[in-house]
Amino acid sequence: MHRAINERQFEDIEAAIDEDVDWAIFGPIDMFPFLGARRGKDAVLDVIRQIADNVRVRRFDRETIMLGVDQAASMLRFSLTALGQSKPISLRVAHFAQFKSGRLTSIRVVVDTFDLVEQVLGQPIHLPKMNSFA
Amino acid sequence: MHRAINERQFEDIEAAIDEDVDWAIFGPIDMFPFLGARRGKDAVLDVIRQIADNVRVRRFDRETIMLGVDQAASMLRFSLTALGQSKPISLRVAHFAQFKSGRLTSIRVVVDTFDLVEQVLGQPIHLPKMNSFA
Repeated sequence: MHRAINERQFEDIEAAIDEDVDWAIFGPIDMFPFLGARRGKDAVLDVIRQIADNVRVRRFDRETIMLGVDQAASMLRFSLTALGQSKPISLRVAHFAQFKSGRLTSIRVVVDTFDLVEQVLGQPIHLPKMNSFA
Repeated sequence: MHRAINERQFEDIEAAIDEDVDWAIFGPIDMFPFLGARRGKDAVLDVIRQIADNVRVRRFDRETIMLGVDQAASMLRFSLTALGQSKPISLRVAHFAQFKSGRLTSIRVVVDTFDLVEQVLGQPIHLPKMNSFA
């Protein structure tokens, strides 16, 4: 995935994705059209290309990884840059993936999206303090 | 955890937490002071009480769960209400936990925080569309 994004080598990843894959990266799709849900290999390859058009992965660290027979879950820290910008974006990403016959059939990705939005905007979003949500 | 929050029964959870537990729920702590990092059982019990003071869990569904010998990871969907409000808040939560001798030693929680903030504010935050982050 990392190589697909940085080097635009999509062949390896194409072979690892099930035709009927169920894909979701939860986040504000109005701001980042390449987030959200996708269904099927073509839609997923298309969104991976969109991500590759927008992002360069500088480094990533596995904080936690769990592997099952046909499942994987991990918490990763990414250091990214947006294409055309030098400012680094630091991102913590939780992902849960399921496989069948070695191919990805389902992936769910959760990101601390508020932090992501603030980093991309380059300024804090002013929020009320909600000690009792009130 | 669910019972501790809803019924304020903290005894069971106290026995399940290591003295030196390392705890983090990543999110905007200015708005939600009970998010963020905590270290040690006392600080964690304190923050669980703060969460119980603010939130009622209406229901939760396990979307994915992975169990290892001393590890667990799950993706959960929560339906919450803030105390004193009736409006439901729907939340997807990824958590990675580590245990030693049956006690929680580390937990990392990632939430789609932008969605959370918008739900609590009750209105969308207007964002620029960033097709190329530019």
